[in-house]
Amino acid sequence: MVAKRDFVSVDDLSGSEILALFRAADRFEADLRAHSGQCPGTILATLFFEPSTRTRLSFESAMLRLGGGVISASEAGSTSATKGESLADTVRVVGGRYSDIIVLRHPFEGAARVAARYASVPVVNAGDGAHEHPTQTLCDLYTLWRQKGKLDGLEVLLAGDLKYSRTIHSLAYALARFGSNLVFQPFPGLEIPESVLVRLERDFSVDVRRARAFEIKGLGAGKDAVYVTPNKPHQNTLFTQIDDEEIDRIDAIYMTRLQRERLEGNEDPTRTDRYPSLDPAQFQGKRFKDMGLMHPLPRVDEISYEFDDDPRALYFRQAALGVPIRMALLAFLLGRLELDAEPEAPHPAGRSREPRERAVYRSAVGLRCKNPRCVTHAPHERYVVPEFLEIREAPPLLRCVFCDWEVEPALIGHAQSRRLHRSNAAEAQRIGAARRVYFEDEAQATAAGFGNA
Amino acid sequence: MVAKRDFVSVDDLSGSEILALFRAADRFEADLRAHSGQCPGTILATLFFEPSTRTRLSFESAMLRLGGGVISASEAGSTSATKGESLADTVRVVGGRYSDIIVLRHPFEGAARVAARYASVPVVNAGDGAHEHPTQTLCDLYTLWRQKGKLDGLEVLLAGDLKYSRTIHSLAYALARFGSNLVFQPFPGLEIPESVLVRLERDFSVDVRRARAFEIKGLGAGKDAVYVTPNKPHQNTLFTQIDDEEIDRIDAIYMTRLQRERLEGNEDPTRTDRYPSLDPAQFQGKRFKDMGLMHPLPRVDEISYEFDDDPRALYFRQAALGVPIRMALLAFLLGRLELDAEPEAPHPAGRSREPRERAVYRSAVGLRCKNPRCVTHAPHERYVVPEFLEIREAPPLLRCVFCDWEVEPALIGHAQSRRLHRSNAAEAQRIGAARRVYFEDEAQATAAGFGNA
Amino acid sequence: MVAKRDFVSVDDLSGSEILALFRAADRFEADLRAHSGQCPGTILATLFFEPSTRTRLSFESAMLRLGGGVISASEAGSTSATKGESLADTVRVVGGRYSDIIVLRHPFEGAARVAARYASVPVVNAGDGAHEHPTQTLCDLYTLWRQKGKLDGLEVLLAGDLKYSRTIHSLAYALARFGSNLVFQPFPGLEIPESVLVRLERDFSVDVRRARAFEIKGLGAGKDAVYVTPNKPHQNTLFTQIDDEEIDRIDAIYMTRLQRERLEGNEDPTRTDRYPSLDPAQFQGKRFKDMGLMHPLPRVDEISYEFDDDPRALYFRQAALGVPIRMALLAFLLGRLELDAEPEAPHPAGRSREPRERAVYRSAVGLRCKNPRCVTHAPHERYVVPEFLEIREAPPLLRCVFCDWEVEPALIGHAQSRRLHRSNAAEAQRIGAARRVYFEDEAQATAAGFGNA
Repeated sequence: MVAKRDFVSVDDLSGSEILALFRAADRFEADLRAHSGQCPGTILATLFFEPSTRTRLSFESAMLRLGGGVISASEAGSTSATKGESLADTVRVVGGRYSDIIVLRHPFEGAARVAARYASVPVVNAGDGAHEHPTQTLCDLYTLWRQKGKLDGLEVLLAGDLKYSRTIHSLAYALARFGSNLVFQPFPGLEIPESVLVRLERDFSVDVRRARAFEIKGLGAGKDAVYVTPNKPHQNTLFTQIDDEEIDRIDAIYMTRLQRERLEGNEDPTRTDRYPSLDPAQFQGKRFKDMGLMHPLPRVDEISYEFDDDPRALYFRQAALGVPIRMALLAFLLGRLELDAEPEAPHPAGRSREPRERAVYRSAVGLRCKNPRCVTHAPHERYVVPEFLEIREAPPLLRCVFCDWEVEPALIGHAQSRRLHRSNAAEAQRIGAARRVYFEDEAQATAAGFGNA
Repeated sequence: MVAKRDFVSVDDLSGSEILALFRAADRFEADLRAHSGQCPGTILATLFFEPSTRTRLSFESAMLRLGGGVISASEAGSTSATKGESLADTVRVVGGRYSDIIVLRHPFEGAARVAARYASVPVVNAGDGAHEHPTQTLCDLYTLWRQKGKLDGLEVLLAGDLKYSRTIHSLAYALARFGSNLVFQPFPGLEIPESVLVRLERDFSVDVRRARAFEIKGLGAGKDAVYVTPNKPHQNTLFTQIDDEEIDRIDAIYMTRLQRERLEGNEDPTRTDRYPSLDPAQFQGKRFKDMGLMHPLPRVDEISYEFDDDPRALYFRQAALGVPIRMALLAFLLGRLELDAEPEAPHPAGRSREPRERAVYRSAVGLRCKNPRCVTHAPHERYVVPEFLEIREAPPLLRCVFCDWEVEPALIGHAQSRRLHRSNAAEAQRIGAARRVYFEDEAQATAAGFGNA
Repeated sequence: MVAKRDFVSVDDLSGSEILALFRAADRFEADLRAHSGQCPGTILATLFFEPSTRTRLSFESAMLRLGGGVISASEAGSTSATKGESLADTVRVVGGRYSDIIVLRHPFEGAARVAARYASVPVVNAGDGAHEHPTQTLCDLYTLWRQKGKLDGLEVLLAGDLKYSRTIHSLAYALARFGSNLVFQPFPGLEIPESVLVRLERDFSVDVRRARAFEIKGLGAGKDAVYVTPNKPHQNTLFTQIDDEEIDRIDAIYMTRLQRERLEGNEDPTRTDRYPSLDPAQFQGKRFKDMGLMHPLPRVDEISYEFDDDPRALYFRQAALGVPIRMALLAFLLGRLELDAEPEAPHPAGRSREPRERAVYRSAVGLRCKNPRCVTHAPHERYVVPEFLEIREAPPLLRCVFCDWEVEPALIGHAQSRRLHRSNAAEAQRIGAARRVYFEDEAQATAAGFGNA
């Protein structure tokens, strides 16, 4: 029996699988009503522990168009049946005979990974807190690929709130993986987080440069832009003027909503009144002739209604393409669609994906993920043992396998001797990987019975 | 490509189309389970911005019986995805690839018309505030037609709350259009509004007479009745005794629920205790032998349970027939059912429908609909430009194309000269239709930069 | 036309029908996705007047796997359409043309029986207050039957909260009916109610003995155990030591959740901290080698996660089997599955079911059910006339046909003479059954116009 496949993160699919899904989605899109014989008797369960009508409807539509059925707990978090029940139990029941595939939305980061471990059927992540929403990313990539015929070498400008938008971070990693060039052009104060740039450089072998970009009216002066290119020779300059030198066209602008609720208390609310509202007049040069304007929707005011009739407006098309790409994904995970692709193939553009061979550290005592919204801290999921990928050995850098937050433990203990060392001490390095026990601080170590040498 | 058809108002179908739908519904009704091959792979989206379980279930049942699928946002108004999003955006997304037809319920009057304009798929109005609920009317007509074999020349008595019941007003127009005779027999204080009578006379060429009707025990003395007949010679009497003279049989009594919540503050609550509760004993004469008792359900106390076993009780049958008639409507709008009918045919009974050639006035500045619940005043729908049908030229009478409220603008300005005139002034009449700008009062005109000549 | 069948109580199916359903469920279970041609065009309505996501999803999955459609009012109690409407009206509408079968969950005990009387389609009880949840029982029986190959002669231990658990009482009656032996081993203070034991003895011809049972660590000393066996010769001892003497193996342990909310005010909350949490270490003897551990789920802490990987853990399997057994039940009630069984056959194990010939007493005046949660006391269901089965004639014992609560009326009146007698008086016995009018007390009799002789 072939092992089941889940889709918790974009990384769960190889590059060639993603491209094969796009080709399959094209076949579905050609006539959406012609595929109702694909999955008869098959059932999708949507378990939404927080509401997201649009995402839910898109998945349900995809399944119904494949001829399957849908059962839905659209407010799973508030019903008595699931109140207080662990996610592991819920998905073991719902994925028992009730359904053949589960689509999960959950407020805790990493929840979908936990669900995938316990469910006997494939699990699709429809958003786990601020962590990932990989089918949104898949849909964004598909829209671009369909519009431009490729992803490699595209010039994509990401604009607006680059700090709090989950969509943007996932999309940036995915575009880098497929060889697109990126221009980050933030609304002042909502710059792309340093941690995202670090990870782009480290995991996707790209060049990251501070730059001064185009002045797009309303989008700010562009002086805090960042330019990301794959494999170009380093130029060793802190600042580059990218507008005329390198980019003679923009293939797509991805605009984001201001997450106003994230700003409260932190920022000056009056300032956000200047958040841009894009209209066609701002994009009139030759450079913008073929650009597509994308947005994950719903929009508030950041794209004016005048753009709706402009042929460059892609956002409604982007929402529409969510159905055929989800049809392809569901049919694939259900074993009803064979992909002309290699599961673990190298990236088609020659760049390597994040190595899968990283060691996993199970932290029965001691180290805990520092993300308070990580599923390992959820009140009903205490059975989950924290696990970390070892990203770097010395000094140690660990990444939570559930929510991807990184932590640098200050102390390392020896599992047998219970002796404790600073992480950067030579003694610490001499402890074999299987005997290391990580701690954040002495209090944590003491509580676990470890002490100084 | 044939233009899509919507069903926002009963007037969106021609009389011959409605009769053809009835014949199609009869075929569905003959065996409801035999039509699951009609719409495979096809999806209905129910978008309910206020709850109405019964209406929603009836539509969903109809679609499922046609072999299609259903996606449902049954509390669309309270979810984060749609909160703050415009109706135009919502229906463009949900009608993108998610669904092939949208059924909308919305608290604002005229909302379904807005949705129909923006959605690329057919939109069916499942109730827009107190405005219309046209599939209820369609179902009422179908029940009568099926029971009596025709609509022309029927004697239909409408009883109870004739003031606040949306159902009754739509039904009255529709019955008048098909040539039924109507007796309005209100609960005292809840008479049929004058505006409905005016419109009946003006738009449906009927005779409207104050009359003294039958004394039906519990239904009041009947002294405030109104009798509506098509094309009869005027009798020039204010009052007629209609019971013995003209009506030797009643074909149907349509009873309504007291909208108790509408009365608060306005009326004496104790008085409503005398709201009728019909039972078979009240309808024992020869005149009532073949009558059908109808009610839109749910009932409160206005029809006693003793009526349930009376063969004249039609109300459960009426609810049941909502499924086959909605099957016919959905199949027709989806292009899966060809009707043996002419879309713009003259009324089968020879009377003309409301003329469709009336000019439309787009009010970019100035005049606004006076209905506070009109969709043009909804907080998220500010992109909608008010539009009015020109019902009468001098003095001007305009009807909102969204909610049907009428307004008589007091002032007319000249679009170029910006000069202002009283609506009934000779100068106002001389301004060409294309140059007229309507205002309610001087303050509104001044705000728009118009002034007195 | 064959009369419709409902499933309101386990007793609505004969023993041979239940066993035939198990065999049919086995065929569905063999490949759940292979039966989508079974019920095309057929619609299940789930009417849930209180939420129960898990039960709802299980039914919906079953119907979809049969190729039918589902319409769902998952919060029927809170919507305007049903608020204030009687259950009789709701099911007459929803069972009109909307659906072909109704699954009902309702907070009032006996509500499903009322619904079954008024709906023209089959009604399945998915839980009516604390009364019955018969498909849970059916699923429990099916799990045991599938695991052990039979029900007759099994040794089943019921543990934990035996006082408030609806599941346990229904299961006990059903197991007794099929000839299993039962050990009740309660958490102290939550013993099986005396009324359940009385009914077991009276209606199922079993032997009920106080006993001292195994000491299962954490389950208490077992000194308040009860042992129920079919047809064994009476031993005339109050206490039996059952552990070694009679039971050399346990086939199943059925563990229950502590209904913590039921305890408030009544019990010492700290004491409930000692409610057991079962783990594999507690069940290590030879006697427990082949036992299956069952639980209706969701669990709180009463079964540890360590049990999940033990092959004796049946609870997830039990939940999963809810789908094929519900498929069999729905297909049978819809007339799409012929059972190789006799509807009114004697019990396969030779024991008689509860006699169906008991007289029914309609109580238009006087006697009312004493259960405050009985549907006859529900505010919107006042049209329901109380009815009682005559369990015993002298002194009279009556059982509510809706909620099964029993009452012993103190007074009997004569319908014509209106004379009143004590129930145990000789005069009372002389009144013919058709002329008896029962009362609880004199006040009730006086209010109805009955007086002392």
